[in-house]
Formats: sequence, C-alpha cells, structure tokens
Amino acid sequence: MIKQFLLAPGPTPVPARVRAALARPVIHHRTPQFGEIFGRVREGLKELFGTSNDVLMLSSSGTGAMESAVVNCFSPGEKVLVVNGGKFGERWVKLAEMYSLDPVVLTVEWGQAVRVADVEAALKDNPDIRGVLIQASETSTTASHPVQEIGRLTRDKDILLVVDGITAVGVYEVPMDDWGIDVLVTGSQKAMMLPPGLAFISLSDRAWSRSESVCQPRYYFDLARERAGQAKNSTAYTPAISLIFGLDEALAMMQEEGWSELYARHDRCARATRAGCTALGLRLLAPDTPSSAATGVFVPDSIDGKKLHGYLRDKMGVAFAGGQDQLKGKILRLAHIGYIDVFDTVTAIAALEMGLHHFSHPVQLGRGVGAAQEVLMSALPD
Amino acid sequence: MIKQFLLAPGPTPVPARVRAALARPVIHHRTPQFGEIFGRVREGLKELFGTSNDVLMLSSSGTGAMESAVVNCFSPGEKVLVVNGGKFGERWVKLAEMYSLDPVVLTVEWGQAVRVADVEAALKDNPDIRGVLIQASETSTTASHPVQEIGRLTRDKDILLVVDGITAVGVYEVPMDDWGIDVLVTGSQKAMMLPPGLAFISLSDRAWSRSESVCQPRYYFDLARERAGQAKNSTAYTPAISLIFGLDEALAMMQEEGWSELYARHDRCARATRAGCTALGLRLLAPDTPSSAATGVFVPDSIDGKKLHGYLRDKMGVAFAGGQDQLKGKILRLAHIGYIDVFDTVTAIAALEMGLHHFSHPVQLGRGVGAAQEVLMSALPD
Repeated sequence: MIKQFLLAPGPTPVPARVRAALARPVIHHRTPQFGEIFGRVREGLKELFGTSNDVLMLSSSGTGAMESAVVNCFSPGEKVLVVNGGKFGERWVKLAEMYSLDPVVLTVEWGQAVRVADVEAALKDNPDIRGVLIQASETSTTASHPVQEIGRLTRDKDILLVVDGITAVGVYEVPMDDWGIDVLVTGSQKAMMLPPGLAFISLSDRAWSRSESVCQPRYYFDLARERAGQAKNSTAYTPAISLIFGLDEALAMMQEEGWSELYARHDRCARATRAGCTALGLRLLAPDTPSSAATGVFVPDSIDGKKLHGYLRDKMGVAFAGGQDQLKGKILRLAHIGYIDVFDTVTAIAALEMGLHHFSHPVQLGRGVGAAQEVLMSALPD
Repeated sequence: MIKQFLLAPGPTPVPARVRAALARPVIHHRTPQFGEIFGRVREGLKELFGTSNDVLMLSSSGTGAMESAVVNCFSPGEKVLVVNGGKFGERWVKLAEMYSLDPVVLTVEWGQAVRVADVEAALKDNPDIRGVLIQASETSTTASHPVQEIGRLTRDKDILLVVDGITAVGVYEVPMDDWGIDVLVTGSQKAMMLPPGLAFISLSDRAWSRSESVCQPRYYFDLARERAGQAKNSTAYTPAISLIFGLDEALAMMQEEGWSELYARHDRCARATRAGCTALGLRLLAPDTPSSAATGVFVPDSIDGKKLHGYLRDKMGVAFAGGQDQLKGKILRLAHIGYIDVFDTVTAIAALEMGLHHFSHPVQLGRGVGAAQEVLMSALPD
C-alpha cells in the first residue's frame, strides 16, 4: 500500500464531497430539475470570474475554451499580440496561426513574466492590433503575467484582452470586469477541484459585440448559441451532467470557505513551498513573478529529473509534474492549486527532501519542511 | 419520495458500478498508471466498434465528434450526400454548410428510413460526391437507416461513409470494418452507460489517408494529433479522467454480458415496448424501420403531449423524452438503450398506461404491460 498524493498543477485532488456528487444518478438535462442546478452554478461562476456577464460552460478541456475564444473573437487576417512565455503561450500562437490571424509574438524567457513596457511598445508599434492573447498564470513555467496592468493598456482601445486563466481563476483574484479583461477562460481540473472535462469562458460586452461580425467557421464552439441556451439554463449540446453536479458542490465549498480565505490559502501554500525549496538550496524557476498555482524548482544538476519525478510518484506515491519541452527532466512543479492545504504542502516538501536524499543529493532532512512550516504557522488561530 | 427512472434515449441510467468508478480519486493522466487503464479501454472500444483501427476518445459531446468527422475528412467545396431524416440528420447538414462543403440533401420523412435506391440514384446523379453523411439510428425519430446496405454502394468508390452511431453503437451490431463504414461516431451517455462528456470516433484507413490532404482549420478536434497521442496511451489535451475510469468499468460490464446477449437484450426490450404500445392502440412513429434504441409513439390527439411528458416525469418519476421540433408535444420516446432490462421496460409501459389513464384516455390497465411481458418472457431461463 502506497498512499497517493496528487500534487500537480492539474489534474488536482478532487474532494470527497465532490466525488460523491459525481456518483449521483444522472438526470436528464432538459428538465426543470437540472435547470435549477444549472442556474445556481451560473451564479457561482459569475462570482468566481468577477463578472456580471454570463460564464459559459463547455464540455471540453481548457484548450477547447481557448479555441472558442479565438474563433468567436477574431477574423482571419486580424492582428493580435501573443505573449509567449511557455507551453501555453505557444498554444495561443498555434491557435492564432490555425485560424489565420496575424500574430505578433512577444517571446518571453521561460520562468519570466512579460514586461508591461514591452507590451506597451508592441501595441504602439502595431496600432492595428485588435487583441492581446496571454496567460494569467503560465502553468508550464509557474510564472504569472501582469494581466491587471495590461488591462490598463487595452481597456480604452479597441483591443480585446483575452486571458487564459486556467491555473489562475480560483487561485488568486482575477476580477474580469474590474481589470478590463474581455475574455477569461478556465478549466475544471485546476482550482475548481473537479476532474477534467469542463471548461468555462466569459466574454465582456465588447467581446460579444465584436463576435457578431467575426467570420470563422465554428459549430461546437459557437458561443452565441451557447449563450442563448445557457441564459435559459440549458446548453446547446448535451452537457457533462455529472461534472456539473460536482461543480455545484465545488462552488458551494468555495463559497463556504470564502473567496478571500481561498485566495489567502493558495498564497500561503505557495509561499511555504517556495520557502521550503529555497531552504533546501534549490533554485526556483520563476523567482520574481511566481504564480500561486504551482512552484517550479530546478532539480540539482547531478540528478536526472525524470528519474526523481518517477521515483517520487511510483515509490513514494507523490505525483508532482515534471517539466515540458526544453525543461523536461530539469524541473519539478509542486502544485498548491485547488484542494491543497497545510499538510499537503508539508508532504510535498518532505517528499522532495526524501527524494533528493535517495538520489544522494546532500539534504538536511526536515530543513525545507521547517521553513515551510514557518510560513504555514502564520494562519493558525491563536 | 418519488423514485426516479431515466428512460430517455440519452442521457441514460448509469449503473452503480460505473458511478462508483466515477467517484475514484483522480490520478494524473501522463503516468503509466493511467496509461494502463487507457490502453485497456482502447482495446474494448475496438471490439465495440468492430474495427482494427484506433477508436479515439474526445472530451466533448457527440456533436463534437460529428464536427471532427467533417473537419478531418472533407475540404471546402467537396460534395457530400447528407441523409436528413430528423434532428440529427439536420445537424450533419448544418455542419456541412458551416465548413463550406457542398451538401446534396436527401430529405426523408421523419419516422422513415432512407431508401437504398434513393441513395443509389443520388450517387449516380452526382458522380462527384465524396462522402455520405448519415445516422445509423436517428434518435429524434427512433428510425434506423440501412447503413450496411449503403456501405455496399460506397465501399468500392471513392466515397467516405460517415455514420453517426450515437444511439446505435452498443445497441445493435455496427461492425465498422465489415460494413465498410469509414467514420463511426458515438457518445458516452447512450449505450455506453456513462454520463455525457466523452465522444468516440474511428476512421478507416482510407479516411485517414483522405484526412491528410483535407484543408480545414482544426485544433481541438485535430484527429491526427489525437491519434498520435492515443497510440501511446495519451491524449493531445487533458482527458476527462473520471469518465475514462467509468468507461473502463462500463466496457467490463459489456464484455461480461457478452456482445450478442447485449444486442439481444436491446432488441427484446425494443420489441416488448413496441408490443406494449401497439396493444394500447397507440401509433408508432417508426413502425417499419424501428431503432432498438428507443420507441417513438404518438400521444392520442386528445392529450397535450408536453403535459403528459411533464406529469410522468414530475409526478410519477418516469423521465421519457418528448418530441423535437415539429414533433414537440406530439410524441413520447421510450428508451431501451444502455442499462435497461426487463422491469425497466415493464415500468415504462405501466407508467405510460397510468399517464394516459390520468389524462382520461381509455386504457385497460395492464394490457400493454401484458403484451410487453409476452415478449420479455422469451428470454427467461427454463
């Protein structure tokens, strides 16, 4: 018996309450009974997104919602600025190319955040830019981009700010309306504490009006059609009913915890993880602009990161994420997104210490854990 | 307390074994542990589809898989024959139009099957047709189309036979390779005994080679990319992990029952339902070419079908499906697809009798049930 811990930045652990909801008997989706649940969930999602607009639910992964953002908001030939600072920034580039947009790519070193001045300069150099595509939290590098500041550049111009918030929404506040975000996307298997299979997207008023004249083929991801249905608590196509039962429960858990405590918990676990890694002498991938979703940490040069990752997962039961593309084998990503608290964070650092020790890296066991505990203590009641 | 029965042609009841699997803790999808489950499921799906090719899993509704069929197999301007005999035939037309194909539409009266001779004539009249888009079972009318016979017309020509098997696969045998089907699609919430959220699609060798030169924008539904990943027990984007746990269990249940008994059970429940409705003097919507997935039956003229449907669902706990579009309020659809057996069928007919009686239609209670029982008896062991 090896007890399993899922500490990756998606999928994330699903609470027992939510898993019990997933196991409920399925009911038909074109009924008042389902409509009642759907309506409640719609309200919860608006709170989460910080918007008075609808938050639409799609049966797809987050990538499907990213595609829907592109095909509903931009016509072929339109120029967009794409911030590419990792695997998911690259996905925006690929989507923009696939749908014949004209992407101006602002490449950012993996682990860094884009500089607001660089975005400002790119917008100045290209006055015909109609949108900015960016991540709030770039999951592959564990860096977060300054979306709020970029919103100040775009909100008064005819430029849509399209934000992949897949590992940001529910981790820290991304108040869509306040920040002038025009399109915000997330997925179920991250801070939402659900299995994968649902994606969420909301459009600002000006994004909706832009979408009316956008010329792109789209059917499954036609958001106008979804909006019309979901306003009546129905979906264009059969929704992932069990996941929506789970979502209802997950949103209730978030509301019971309270949004500010939810965000503070993520921030605390993130700071504790960084403190723990730093105390172990490890180098952080995104030290200056870290996301509170996950912490990327370089594996010591003497260790094959893939072996360490596999050992932790298969022999110790602790599943972190490794690196992607050029970071494969070089980093681990320790997540603190979703249903993660004090002792998950302790477990993460303790496992990391033991794994490093196993691979003969000099580690003082408990040192990283102690540093993490110092941070975690701060939230204990008197 | 009103005990609930879901007797609609999707979503369908999910067995407790499958629901328990849905509630299992989520594991990461890029792991050998998940790969083992995924590999087992891939094999089961090939049996179900009757193909030696891969059956790809998509996180979407069945409509997403229909869209993926269109965007991977046909370029703009290509002529296709679309059999439109109901709501889902119409969906093929809309998809064909959205992606700028040139559809020749063969309209079939709702409740009828297309005549093979009409397909043959249309193919003769339009020698440049590159594909036929059709339903195996048209869910909206409960009629089934003669897909096997149409396969004989297309298999030796450069015409892809694209079949929506959403309420056929797992209900009756649709052996893709034997029948010369080039693309076969289904969804999770039908005979697969799962909640909605997964779709399945398989392509023949010639459909794969056609897809290489097809010029359509596609990203989330790019099947070549999925095929490359799924061959290594992985998916292009995060899969609906919990639904795949459930699928593993559902396929095990199907295999334990045995494919021939599975198909015989559906056929038996369908025949029993038709016998029950007929004994009550009701008119069947698709008397000549009925699908074994569901039975459409006209509500007596004196009764508002929407009221009967709502009464059965809200007051008696029995959720049938009503009619769509021009059949709204005029029919009920009693399903026998998926996890449905003898006493579900008895319940369906008994509820129908009691509902008709409630709305003052002359009914001899038990008469329809008795006729259904006669059919159901045939399968009892000696």
